[in-house]
Amino acid sequence: MAIIEKLQWRAAIKSFDPAKKLSAKQLDDLLSAVQLSPSSAGLQPYKILVVENPEIREKLREAAHGQAQLTQSSQVIIFAAETNIDEAYAKKYIDLIAKTREIGREHLYAFEQSILNILNNQTEEQKISSATKQAYIALGVLLTAAAELGIDACPMEGFQAGKFDEILGLKELGLTTAVIAPVGFRSDEDILSKMTKVRRPKEELFVHV
Amino acid sequence: MAIIEKLQWRAAIKSFDPAKKLSAKQLDDLLSAVQLSPSSAGLQPYKILVVENPEIREKLREAAHGQAQLTQSSQVIIFAAETNIDEAYAKKYIDLIAKTREIGREHLYAFEQSILNILNNQTEEQKISSATKQAYIALGVLLTAAAELGIDACPMEGFQAGKFDEILGLKELGLTTAVIAPVGFRSDEDILSKMTKVRRPKEELFVHV
Repeated sequence: MAIIEKLQWRAAIKSFDPAKKLSAKQLDDLLSAVQLSPSSAGLQPYKILVVENPEIREKLREAAHGQAQLTQSSQVIIFAAETNIDEAYAKKYIDLIAKTREIGREHLYAFEQSILNILNNQTEEQKISSATKQAYIALGVLLTAAAELGIDACPMEGFQAGKFDEILGLKELGLTTAVIAPVGFRSDEDILSKMTKVRRPKEELFVHV
Repeated sequence: MAIIEKLQWRAAIKSFDPAKKLSAKQLDDLLSAVQLSPSSAGLQPYKILVVENPEIREKLREAAHGQAQLTQSSQVIIFAAETNIDEAYAKKYIDLIAKTREIGREHLYAFEQSILNILNNQTEEQKISSATKQAYIALGVLLTAAAELGIDACPMEGFQAGKFDEILGLKELGLTTAVIAPVGFRSDEDILSKMTKVRRPKEELFVHV
């Protein structure tokens, strides 16, 4: 099945089958795709929480208007923006490039300076806003890769981010919840995924210049 | 080739081969994927500009620090956030659902009210920030679908959004540039795509709870 049919098949699943879990291979493939997501300057300014613990999921559900996807899905994927993107973070990233590509750190000096220059010109708020946008790219990658792999997901913004941070102890880790996506497999009772997908028509959505 | 290998293959291409253009089928597939992108409540609060015009691309390049991708790629895809997401926009969307799914508008009353409720509680700034995040999901879908289809792309934030809006007359259309992605095919001279991809190691990026 081609990518377009896979994207036609995907839907924001409200009713997951709690008996169906991702295999270790499926979860690893999905996380590998997320790991490969592009980000501004390659900084990947986020961490991804993979929540399976039932008690924690119950608490998260309460902080997400009781929505059943939080407890009925196979895992809850949480995209958390890094709140401390600083000089130390940038230096560690440059170290990683030098190590991965086996090149001298001196060849990365100009690139490092350009990153530091961007960071030094951003307020804390701008940094978190930028990190959040990068997390949304990763969400788009996850949803597309999930569709490709035949895995269901439900992107969700309807939750109390502050409470999520509290339940997961994210503040202490220098993180804050940006967006979430429970993953798993749809149940037969999921109604919306059986309906025709609604999208703005191409002639309205696209402007050719 | 599986999705993971395709994502390994993709890279932010700096040097496109100006002689290689997307076929009509390739462009249509890519845009179909973008059209199918999920968004908050399904509102798709953006338009996508597909820029081929050489004179306009020259001007955009000037407003993007002279970066060659703007003129050497096959098309420049511009994700522009809607700046006027209002009651009329929501009503039009509900009309589209009723028409697409052939259901009476009265069955969508609660959903319509929930959307209006969200919109009425957002400032203009929050609405544009939300629309921008949805555009970034669409960017993630585009980049993943492009990889799947063997098409190159370069996600870019390094441009002057205000100048882009001016060149493309977006303000008059109730739009503002969020993020862009030239698409096409890499040239043999593209250096970075030949290097090992750098990503945060899984044990650092993922937190299992």
